[in-house]
Amino acid sequence: MKIKLSLLLFTLFLSLSLVEAQQAKPRARDLGIPFYGTPGKYNAITDVAGVEVGYKTLIEGSGKLEVGKGPVRTGVTAIFPKGKGSLERVFAGWFTLNGNGEMTGTTWVDESGCLGSPVLITNTHSVGIVRDAVIEWYMKKLKSSDYSGDISLPVVAETWDGTLNDINGFHVKKEHVYEAMESAASGPIKEGNVGGGTGMIVHQFKGGTGTSSRKLDAAQGGYTVGVLVQANYGSRELLTIAGVPVGKEITDLRPMKKADEDQGSIIVVLATDAPLLPHQLKRVVKRVALGIGVMGGRGGNSSGDIFIAFSTANPEISSESEIAHLEMLPNEKINPIFNAATAATEEAIVNAMIAAETMEGINGNKVYAIPHDRLISVMKKYNRLSK
Amino acid sequence: MKIKLSLLLFTLFLSLSLVEAQQAKPRARDLGIPFYGTPGKYNAITDVAGVEVGYKTLIEGSGKLEVGKGPVRTGVTAIFPKGKGSLERVFAGWFTLNGNGEMTGTTWVDESGCLGSPVLITNTHSVGIVRDAVIEWYMKKLKSSDYSGDISLPVVAETWDGTLNDINGFHVKKEHVYEAMESAASGPIKEGNVGGGTGMIVHQFKGGTGTSSRKLDAAQGGYTVGVLVQANYGSRELLTIAGVPVGKEITDLRPMKKADEDQGSIIVVLATDAPLLPHQLKRVVKRVALGIGVMGGRGGNSSGDIFIAFSTANPEISSESEIAHLEMLPNEKINPIFNAATAATEEAIVNAMIAAETMEGINGNKVYAIPHDRLISVMKKYNRLSK
Amino acid sequence: MKIKLSLLLFTLFLSLSLVEAQQAKPRARDLGIPFYGTPGKYNAITDVAGVEVGYKTLIEGSGKLEVGKGPVRTGVTAIFPKGKGSLERVFAGWFTLNGNGEMTGTTWVDESGCLGSPVLITNTHSVGIVRDAVIEWYMKKLKSSDYSGDISLPVVAETWDGTLNDINGFHVKKEHVYEAMESAASGPIKEGNVGGGTGMIVHQFKGGTGTSSRKLDAAQGGYTVGVLVQANYGSRELLTIAGVPVGKEITDLRPMKKADEDQGSIIVVLATDAPLLPHQLKRVVKRVALGIGVMGGRGGNSSGDIFIAFSTANPEISSESEIAHLEMLPNEKINPIFNAATAATEEAIVNAMIAAETMEGINGNKVYAIPHDRLISVMKKYNRLSK
Amino acid sequence: MKIKLSLLLFTLFLSLSLVEAQQAKPRARDLGIPFYGTPGKYNAITDVAGVEVGYKTLIEGSGKLEVGKGPVRTGVTAIFPKGKGSLERVFAGWFTLNGNGEMTGTTWVDESGCLGSPVLITNTHSVGIVRDAVIEWYMKKLKSSDYSGDISLPVVAETWDGTLNDINGFHVKKEHVYEAMESAASGPIKEGNVGGGTGMIVHQFKGGTGTSSRKLDAAQGGYTVGVLVQANYGSRELLTIAGVPVGKEITDLRPMKKADEDQGSIIVVLATDAPLLPHQLKRVVKRVALGIGVMGGRGGNSSGDIFIAFSTANPEISSESEIAHLEMLPNEKINPIFNAATAATEEAIVNAMIAAETMEGINGNKVYAIPHDRLISVMKKYNRLSK
Repeated sequence: MKIKLSLLLFTLFLSLSLVEAQQAKPRARDLGIPFYGTPGKYNAITDVAGVEVGYKTLIEGSGKLEVGKGPVRTGVTAIFPKGKGSLERVFAGWFTLNGNGEMTGTTWVDESGCLGSPVLITNTHSVGIVRDAVIEWYMKKLKSSDYSGDISLPVVAETWDGTLNDINGFHVKKEHVYEAMESAASGPIKEGNVGGGTGMIVHQFKGGTGTSSRKLDAAQGGYTVGVLVQANYGSRELLTIAGVPVGKEITDLRPMKKADEDQGSIIVVLATDAPLLPHQLKRVVKRVALGIGVMGGRGGNSSGDIFIAFSTANPEISSESEIAHLEMLPNEKINPIFNAATAATEEAIVNAMIAAETMEGINGNKVYAIPHDRLISVMKKYNRLSK
Repeated sequence: MKIKLSLLLFTLFLSLSLVEAQQAKPRARDLGIPFYGTPGKYNAITDVAGVEVGYKTLIEGSGKLEVGKGPVRTGVTAIFPKGKGSLERVFAGWFTLNGNGEMTGTTWVDESGCLGSPVLITNTHSVGIVRDAVIEWYMKKLKSSDYSGDISLPVVAETWDGTLNDINGFHVKKEHVYEAMESAASGPIKEGNVGGGTGMIVHQFKGGTGTSSRKLDAAQGGYTVGVLVQANYGSRELLTIAGVPVGKEITDLRPMKKADEDQGSIIVVLATDAPLLPHQLKRVVKRVALGIGVMGGRGGNSSGDIFIAFSTANPEISSESEIAHLEMLPNEKINPIFNAATAATEEAIVNAMIAAETMEGINGNKVYAIPHDRLISVMKKYNRLSK
Repeated sequence: MKIKLSLLLFTLFLSLSLVEAQQAKPRARDLGIPFYGTPGKYNAITDVAGVEVGYKTLIEGSGKLEVGKGPVRTGVTAIFPKGKGSLERVFAGWFTLNGNGEMTGTTWVDESGCLGSPVLITNTHSVGIVRDAVIEWYMKKLKSSDYSGDISLPVVAETWDGTLNDINGFHVKKEHVYEAMESAASGPIKEGNVGGGTGMIVHQFKGGTGTSSRKLDAAQGGYTVGVLVQANYGSRELLTIAGVPVGKEITDLRPMKKADEDQGSIIVVLATDAPLLPHQLKRVVKRVALGIGVMGGRGGNSSGDIFIAFSTANPEISSESEIAHLEMLPNEKINPIFNAATAATEEAIVNAMIAAETMEGINGNKVYAIPHDRLISVMKKYNRLSK
Repeated sequence: MKIKLSLLLFTLFLSLSLVEAQQAKPRARDLGIPFYGTPGKYNAITDVAGVEVGYKTLIEGSGKLEVGKGPVRTGVTAIFPKGKGSLERVFAGWFTLNGNGEMTGTTWVDESGCLGSPVLITNTHSVGIVRDAVIEWYMKKLKSSDYSGDISLPVVAETWDGTLNDINGFHVKKEHVYEAMESAASGPIKEGNVGGGTGMIVHQFKGGTGTSSRKLDAAQGGYTVGVLVQANYGSRELLTIAGVPVGKEITDLRPMKKADEDQGSIIVVLATDAPLLPHQLKRVVKRVALGIGVMGGRGGNSSGDIFIAFSTANPEISSESEIAHLEMLPNEKINPIFNAATAATEEAIVNAMIAAETMEGINGNKVYAIPHDRLISVMKKYNRLSK
């Protein structure tokens, strides 16, 4: 009996340590990197009430690439605007800085002004299976009377992970999609080598999934703006963090076989509870591009820089038969949302870099995490450390 | 004395006859041409409550062109969404079938989702003076505290009237713009050779200003959709009225020196009281193009086919500081509005043709009105006369 | 031996009869329906040199729907711009009349101005598997040095066939995609209930796949414009053929359980050998919407009316390293292409209707082909029969 | 005689001194501010062969505003892509970061892919008169056989100067437009308080006209990218120069009566000799927004941030009747142009600020130039001075 209790306590201790370890994993602000604005509780997209995020991370094998066998370094990320499995629509808008990528469902988002599905992110060659799986997941769960056409046009985006992952092995299966969807939760979320962001490269360092949020002052409406990025873009030379030319200071630790082009992609999902209409969300999502710009991203030719924004306000828009009663923030009050969009994008990218860990993938290809100590030194050199 | 009285009476009789003649002036439906849907009271854009239309028509001189002297065949049309001089904004959206034309102010319409000025239409070379005059008109009337930035970016569109008008004489002056604006009124409106539509050519017949409206059933919301066109486009060969190949049946009565290209332009203004958001108005205004299509318009290369739609619902959007409370028609209920947009555009164009009268302009250039009797015969030949 | 020979001859006879029967199957022009312009040799998209089309048609089972078992009424259509498996890019542009649909790959088409994959069309719930299968097909065939990023972002479109097909059974498999691709050929192509068009409904009659082309006069450049449609849209009430209100004349033969809304979708692929740049192809593809408009389509809310156009001219654009030498048709010479785009779209839709045969699908749902004899009578009534 | 000679010499001396003073006027690089890339000969838009720039600067009166009398602080800027008065078209594309502004002619630029007029920039309330004057200028100069429709749809943009200028006095007259156009020249160009940029405010410092260019390496094609800005946007708080938070360091010297909103506007004209097609120029001009982003611009709600790019390559596009033979840079080679667009925009804005001088306008409103010495100190503090 005693032993069992001690085992239990030990397990509990381990769990707490892990939690602690996870909490202890520093984020960009913890390192003293300065950003504009005040984050929400978790500094995450989940600070916007209703938003839930789930991942399925696939890491298997190592060594030489055998197409269909691995190594596997990929995954799936699922973002629900209004909670897992909700069929509520949200107003939405999208923008592309450079369109060398895929985000399915955007034609209907544009036309309807609404997003009626979760947003999924995976690797480039798995967009199809993820798309159909989202539909199948809903079809299995729904009573047919609940069917909404929106479900048949889900939003699924991608970035390329073929430097690390056996992308032509098509390792993402529909069960993985279901797992990502079903694991979706609110609260703090993992960053770095997780979900669709598992095999990413950003500014020639290890990239991945990152998040951040901004909480506006009460005088500005008290709204929250949250951002999640799957960051896989950028040249080293232009890497700029908080205005500091980091890419010119840390020129080593480069991945194998990669020219220093602005290539790859970045998918950004922006959530807000501000009552914005579709045309206003288009305005907001354009400012995501500015956040990439201040990082040194230029939307390189082979980059798929595609962004979607949605507002969780205005629940009546889901009705297909009744006049909806809405609220709208005046355009004259939108500037704080613009500033938040740019700042949270910038911070989410840096958070992805800080959380990501060095990874070895197919054929021993190795991508290095940005070394925290050297980054701090560079920030000091340019007098930009906030603490 | 007796003579004078009789003269007076005779003059009075003539005037009454003219009034009667004008009232009796048939419109397309009066001739038995069939159209889809039920028009509003006046079968005019002014059936949408609040909409006011004013004209200034400039017709002077005849014979050989002397640039700066004439002959003059041009004018200005002013459409106020919410009554003359109101500063209320309305939601708006625009679309272009073929962009060989000018509609100022559309960049801000697109960005803000709103129209905060009247819509003016004139000839191609007078857009500038009309634009600045609209601003000056408001600046003279406004208290500075009422100033809205929207007024500085007014919407002014154009079509080319250089076949009949001394367009390089720049005959539109700011006083003419003021007259058009100040004469704006609700109720029935003139069609044909009036306002900006004075010197128009459509499908190689005399064109001009035309209007039409649709009143939806109560079950469809009871909304009104009104359209005003300044029609100046199209080849004769493709002219189609109510599905009938009129252009192949009436091949004579062609204007001098005009190849049968789809050239010229058409500006369309669509008003509705349905509670549509900006992205929904973009959807509606796209259906205007279909109305031109069924007439045989193809958006020829030199044609400026630019359309703007606005909704007079949702008065709270004018506030620059307060959350606006809005209503929105669900997308699932929008089809009757789409059908109305296409049908009212088609009918407004035919109304412009039916009302227009043969005109001789610069250098004796003559453009013929479509002959009503021959049109009726053609409609009969194809079994398409509704009465 | 004798017997075998006679069997062979009999088989040969049967085959010839089938060919004859197929040749004898009338198309819209054969019935005397008049259209604008002169078609190419096959009056098909394959009149544009290089274009190849393949189908996989899936028709299995009958009776009550059992999800996953059938009945199955669906398929896949594959269109190669430059021959089966070619990696050559073509300039391209796309447009949407109403965006309740999916066409993957369009973000990159818009950005790059190019189409670097075939265009595939299937049912709404199979877009994903078709997309990934296109990638896998190329990955298996290509030497890695031939890889072009375009292949990873293929263009796959859809229309809904759930009235006739067990769409939630996900019956399209990747082998079917390969079959459609590998069967692609030039020359005359099948119409009606084939490929992705198998389970379509158009204006409440049986729809499907249709095609048409236009050959311009030498004076207009002698170019060919070809169109292929997967037609699944439209209300009966507004159905208009060659200007004749057919939908008001044939009001019976309606499918079960379908309100007369403009619903469904239409995908249009337009090919030309005219040397048009991407921005010019955007202009051309917009005129496809006018062809749908003259048929009585209004881009209903639940319709996914998405069109893509490409030009097979300018082979040098496939180089990723060398300056390409191009030809461009002046905008001033583009009107005949506009007219061809509208006319060929209209005719391709009517061809789809004329070729389609009455079909019974899930739960005994039955969709009737338009009866040729009654259509001819209606055309006569309105004096619109060309022979 | 002697006296006269000495006077002449003295005048000559004065002139030379002025020239010297002008030459000595430092630009951003002269102060040691670091920028990405290598500028062309003049570090100006005129480094692109063919581009000519002219100004008319209107500065009159001081003290209290009397509408119609002054004070006047405004002007006109004219940019010719192919030399003063040339009727050659150039390929062009445009983009808007925030559309609270006017740029006429863009609908035709978008449709045709071409720019067939000069680009003019003035104040918000004078767009109309400038637009019509451009047309009249050409009409007076042209033989009628040379007329191109492009001339009737000229590109005229604006920014607001009402803080310093009697904008409702409508002081720009058509003669001023002619002067700006006729003074256009290649070579070095003036910056700061000149032309349309006379009364500008940028990040709460004095703004105005600025320019910069980039010359690519031979390996990148050796192309030149030039930018001219009329900068009138931005909050002080977010002002960032070469990554340094200048706005947080220099918080005084603020203009009267101006809240620190991101307001105003910025017009950017980008020229290149790289053989880019219209869709590629759209890609390039989007990167202008990133240059504004790195400065701390966020496209505030009341800002009209509108940009146009053109390519002087491909002279055959002006033909209205012949197939044009073109060259196209492959998309895969476009990244250096993207980088140049962002960098030259950033530098042109800083150049505008460095060249601008403190100005007092209507009602004694005073806007301060950024103090060079304090700027240098701030750059030093953050270790970002290049010399």
